Amino acid sequence: MDTVPTICTTDRPNGKPLSKVTIVGSGQVGMACAFSLVTQGITDEVALVDMVKDKLAGEVMDLQQGSVFTPGVKIYGSTDYSVTKDSKICVITAGARQKEGESRLQLIEKNVQILKQTIPQLLKYSPNAILLLVTNPVDVLTYCAWKISGRPVGTVIGTGTSLDTGRLKFLIAEKINISPKCVHIWIIGEHGDSSVPVWSRLQIGGVNLQELNHPSGISEEKSLEELHKAVVNSAYDIIKLKGYTSWAIGLNVADICRTILHNSRRIHAVTTLVQGFYGVGEEVFASLPCVLDTSGISNVIPLKVNDDEKEKFLQATNTLYEVQQSTGL
Amino acid sequence: MDTVPTICTTDRPNGKPLSKVTIVGSGQVGMACAFSLVTQGITDEVALVDMVKDKLAGEVMDLQQGSVFTPGVKIYGSTDYSVTKDSKICVITAGARQKEGESRLQLIEKNVQILKQTIPQLLKYSPNAILLLVTNPVDVLTYCAWKISGRPVGTVIGTGTSLDTGRLKFLIAEKINISPKCVHIWIIGEHGDSSVPVWSRLQIGGVNLQELNHPSGISEEKSLEELHKAVVNSAYDIIKLKGYTSWAIGLNVADICRTILHNSRRIHAVTTLVQGFYGVGEEVFASLPCVLDTSGISNVIPLKVNDDEKEKFLQATNTLYEVQQSTGL
Amino acid sequence: MDTVPTICTTDRPNGKPLSKVTIVGSGQVGMACAFSLVTQGITDEVALVDMVKDKLAGEVMDLQQGSVFTPGVKIYGSTDYSVTKDSKICVITAGARQKEGESRLQLIEKNVQILKQTIPQLLKYSPNAILLLVTNPVDVLTYCAWKISGRPVGTVIGTGTSLDTGRLKFLIAEKINISPKCVHIWIIGEHGDSSVPVWSRLQIGGVNLQELNHPSGISEEKSLEELHKAVVNSAYDIIKLKGYTSWAIGLNVADICRTILHNSRRIHAVTTLVQGFYGVGEEVFASLPCVLDTSGISNVIPLKVNDDEKEKFLQATNTLYEVQQSTGL
Amino acid sequence: MDTVPTICTTDRPNGKPLSKVTIVGSGQVGMACAFSLVTQGITDEVALVDMVKDKLAGEVMDLQQGSVFTPGVKIYGSTDYSVTKDSKICVITAGARQKEGESRLQLIEKNVQILKQTIPQLLKYSPNAILLLVTNPVDVLTYCAWKISGRPVGTVIGTGTSLDTGRLKFLIAEKINISPKCVHIWIIGEHGDSSVPVWSRLQIGGVNLQELNHPSGISEEKSLEELHKAVVNSAYDIIKLKGYTSWAIGLNVADICRTILHNSRRIHAVTTLVQGFYGVGEEVFASLPCVLDTSGISNVIPLKVNDDEKEKFLQATNTLYEVQQSTGL
Repeated sequence: MDTVPTICTTDRPNGKPLSKVTIVGSGQVGMACAFSLVTQGITDEVALVDMVKDKLAGEVMDLQQGSVFTPGVKIYGSTDYSVTKDSKICVITAGARQKEGESRLQLIEKNVQILKQTIPQLLKYSPNAILLLVTNPVDVLTYCAWKISGRPVGTVIGTGTSLDTGRLKFLIAEKINISPKCVHIWIIGEHGDSSVPVWSRLQIGGVNLQELNHPSGISEEKSLEELHKAVVNSAYDIIKLKGYTSWAIGLNVADICRTILHNSRRIHAVTTLVQGFYGVGEEVFASLPCVLDTSGISNVIPLKVNDDEKEKFLQATNTLYEVQQSTGL
Repeated sequence: MDTVPTICTTDRPNGKPLSKVTIVGSGQVGMACAFSLVTQGITDEVALVDMVKDKLAGEVMDLQQGSVFTPGVKIYGSTDYSVTKDSKICVITAGARQKEGESRLQLIEKNVQILKQTIPQLLKYSPNAILLLVTNPVDVLTYCAWKISGRPVGTVIGTGTSLDTGRLKFLIAEKINISPKCVHIWIIGEHGDSSVPVWSRLQIGGVNLQELNHPSGISEEKSLEELHKAVVNSAYDIIKLKGYTSWAIGLNVADICRTILHNSRRIHAVTTLVQGFYGVGEEVFASLPCVLDTSGISNVIPLKVNDDEKEKFLQATNTLYEVQQSTGL
Repeated sequence: MDTVPTICTTDRPNGKPLSKVTIVGSGQVGMACAFSLVTQGITDEVALVDMVKDKLAGEVMDLQQGSVFTPGVKIYGSTDYSVTKDSKICVITAGARQKEGESRLQLIEKNVQILKQTIPQLLKYSPNAILLLVTNPVDVLTYCAWKISGRPVGTVIGTGTSLDTGRLKFLIAEKINISPKCVHIWIIGEHGDSSVPVWSRLQIGGVNLQELNHPSGISEEKSLEELHKAVVNSAYDIIKLKGYTSWAIGLNVADICRTILHNSRRIHAVTTLVQGFYGVGEEVFASLPCVLDTSGISNVIPLKVNDDEKEKFLQATNTLYEVQQSTGL
Repeated sequence: MDTVPTICTTDRPNGKPLSKVTIVGSGQVGMACAFSLVTQGITDEVALVDMVKDKLAGEVMDLQQGSVFTPGVKIYGSTDYSVTKDSKICVITAGARQKEGESRLQLIEKNVQILKQTIPQLLKYSPNAILLLVTNPVDVLTYCAWKISGRPVGTVIGTGTSLDTGRLKFLIAEKINISPKCVHIWIIGEHGDSSVPVWSRLQIGGVNLQELNHPSGISEEKSLEELHKAVVNSAYDIIKLKGYTSWAIGLNVADICRTILHNSRRIHAVTTLVQGFYGVGEEVFASLPCVLDTSGISNVIPLKVNDDEKEKFLQATNTLYEVQQSTGL
């Protein structure tokens, strides 16, 4: 018997990951993002950063041990940003939640402070990473992240109405008993209560809204309003029922990362600079359908909307602009 | 323009899922199982059952809306077991947690009561489903589920030491910087504190333990003991740090379901009847490596163990047998 | 040391596959179908049947040995149809190719003879399987297979214009540099030269044809005609260049199988009975968008078409009807 | 109605792929490699290069059109190497086949000429790419590619005995009716007739060869010899039956690319410099188990072998050395 008694190491350093993703925040949303990335093998390495050391350590340990049963993504976590080195995307889920008696503007101010601490650290270790904002209010905070980072406009993105759009697709698909992959519709504008569903663009397997004479009565105006209301109420309903939202936003973030990291040029409704669209004159951030690839947003789709939809979009962007202004950025 | 103004339905009923999985319990473990199945597209339909209506409704709503961003598994939830109809596997995660001052036997009694209510309902709607037990103490409860169900021995399975084995693979892989897919080792016996790592079977990329002269010193006995201790403490550590365990057990369950539903005949260390192995004379349930396919467990691997490993295995099964007896089943 | 010296078999039979697919014909098309199914893990078992024993044996051996590097689909092949037992889908790619001096009707007659031998054998071993026809001329042969099989209309399907539709999506996507997943268009009617692209239903990320003012000039009528011509010529071009077509049809078949086996209810443009659509009075088979699940086709989408598109559709179905008649089925 | 009448392009260039793979040669092997990569979504972009323009154009067209039905890998092909720019891996499948009356050395000389033309072109456009050799005789040609390229030793790799190992795993798994994922064995040394199966390292689900008392009689020496003979004959058998080998080598290459591109640190038996192992004194290339990541080979596993295995390994490397010498590189 003859053997070289060790695993023989060459003198070259180990390989670097090609598609690393950092997630800032190990709360329910951050962990749902991480888990969605790991289970679907979208990335080859996930770094988790959080200030709450114990929670982070527990989540990382649990996820690492589970990774044995998956395609094999590596997972690291630390309170030190050096763990994020060489990330292609940094997902920001960290943020304060609204406290009782606290105004919305006070909340924003708190979260802007968090961005001011976080973003320079992220860019220090990954100067060319795409920043993907998840923390709410996502439209205003994406604007703030853009200003704080000093990065090109297409590289600072918010999840925006991509979640609202996904929720609406599910509700329509469920109603007419078809795969949501075959339901084509966009919700644009502000993420949340003032979002604008572009009904005039609805297409289901090639059938437009006005031609759709489904027994469910889905194409009637009242039914459409109810569907949008259900989308808007989703977050409130889920929080009331289970305490927080996590799975849908986690999968939504992972899906955006998939398009970016695979350089796919698929279209997602995400938050970006909408100046110049529908007569928006100011430097406002809101959602429109965007083509994504490894460079970030490379194209914005100038979706045709009717007068009513345009009016609602402008109302929302006006309000967003005022809130943006109040941050002083 | 000419059109048939509706989506035309043929007169045949819609298709049935081929690989449906039911999950009983929508707590952190149940939801991690569901999420692991959905994101990896292992099944085509997940049914969630729970007695806590609101929590369940919130989790199902959140997961359904997220499914839009995945390959497209269907998700249903209800407090009524009819939602579980035609399942191929029923995963049981429901169970009481140990309360202060409560003895272990009192806890088991409670969970046996839950099984007595649950299992007949599951078998009513899916008489040939494989039952996969997750609730702790998993070995004893798998025995109880077998007795309550009256089903063949290979169709009532516990996750057993498959999680312990996965955790150990991760810790070894991390220490020598190699993919856990290339680390081959089994932990057998009782899930948890008394589990038995079969060091004599360790093989890493074709290298056995005694030949492994790695700079990390991993092959020294003290190091091995520490690794096993770390595995045993994992659950305690994670619960202390984040409050509960979820990701690893969820992915572990999904991996077992993958082997069963894809008829893969891969080997997992799961809880089954171990009578006849290593001199076990009684009808005891504990973990050994088992070949799984759509029929459940089709083979048990008679792993060679040394005297020390055998002794520990028998000690654990003796204790398990006494606890089994105490349930009166 | 103590051991039970064998892999211990329980007394129950091994598990049956849940999602088996049979492929009739191990030529370039059949093998591309098999390879697409195996690599994507769409099924858990593939059975290949062919009359040419050696070619079949070589292909099965090569594919089986390769399966080690995939998720783990099982592959079997035989000249005996018993290997197809318990299939969920039977894909028929076998067929004679047109010889010089042979008329189209003579070719059809030959292939109908093959169907008459094949289909009863398939149904003997898998009486409820969905039949998926690939052999050309696919529309007429799907009609013949339906007649020969005596099975319900939605369970005998032809790949039809799903391939033409896929090709068109690719060409459009390439021209405007976007993911083909975001291009929504249907080609309907007869597979091949007389196929009808429904330009009025084109939607790209929510933008309709007439609104699309892309620098590539794609929305101009001449450009559209050229794109359709390129689709029609694809098969001829590829055959001239490499001798046969394989990859695209293989992936197309696998994609249809994915929707059926996963019970997804996605929409594909496949060959089915189109009587009653656009004024078709006879029992003709051609392609329209169809909702698929494990039951086969559960719905046909009544796509709105303009007068020109309708006229072309009717011309094609008239011709198809005459050919169908000539088969005497 | 109000619209911006075009898809709005930002002023930044489109994104670059993160994990591009080049394949040199669009024959049956090259195309099986490409198809395996595309269908499994292992890379985000495949570039095909060949000197035979028509064949290449046909294959690329067929594969591109099929990509619509897959996760969405981009495919390009050209006779001009600029299409390979920024590749992470370059797979070389091009090469002459042995003609009647031609000696083995004459064949090698021809293929070395091809490498001398190809490699500088590849490195011009992707100076840091890993070179993965597939063309036979793979061991000698990997040595030549290493010399021609001037690149570090771990970045020029041959598929070597990874295919032989996969074939053996399949044959063993089939014989004992278990998943090949649970069969652990290595074939090392020279790819082909002189390959060395390391039976002493066989482990199946934790069971070693000498303990395996399977009814198939697999552990008897005669049975083992027959299994190895079947592996060695595989290529000859398949070529005799279907004319060429393709699927297994294609999937094998894709699996190696998966480990490299995902930075997984899994172990594959691939061709590398084996000087220093088992007393090899010369600069010879042959196969040993190697840890792979994005840097190429980072570690070689010093597999323990018995005297007989060592002897055979040295015989093979001696012969390989002589052939290497004859190339004058």
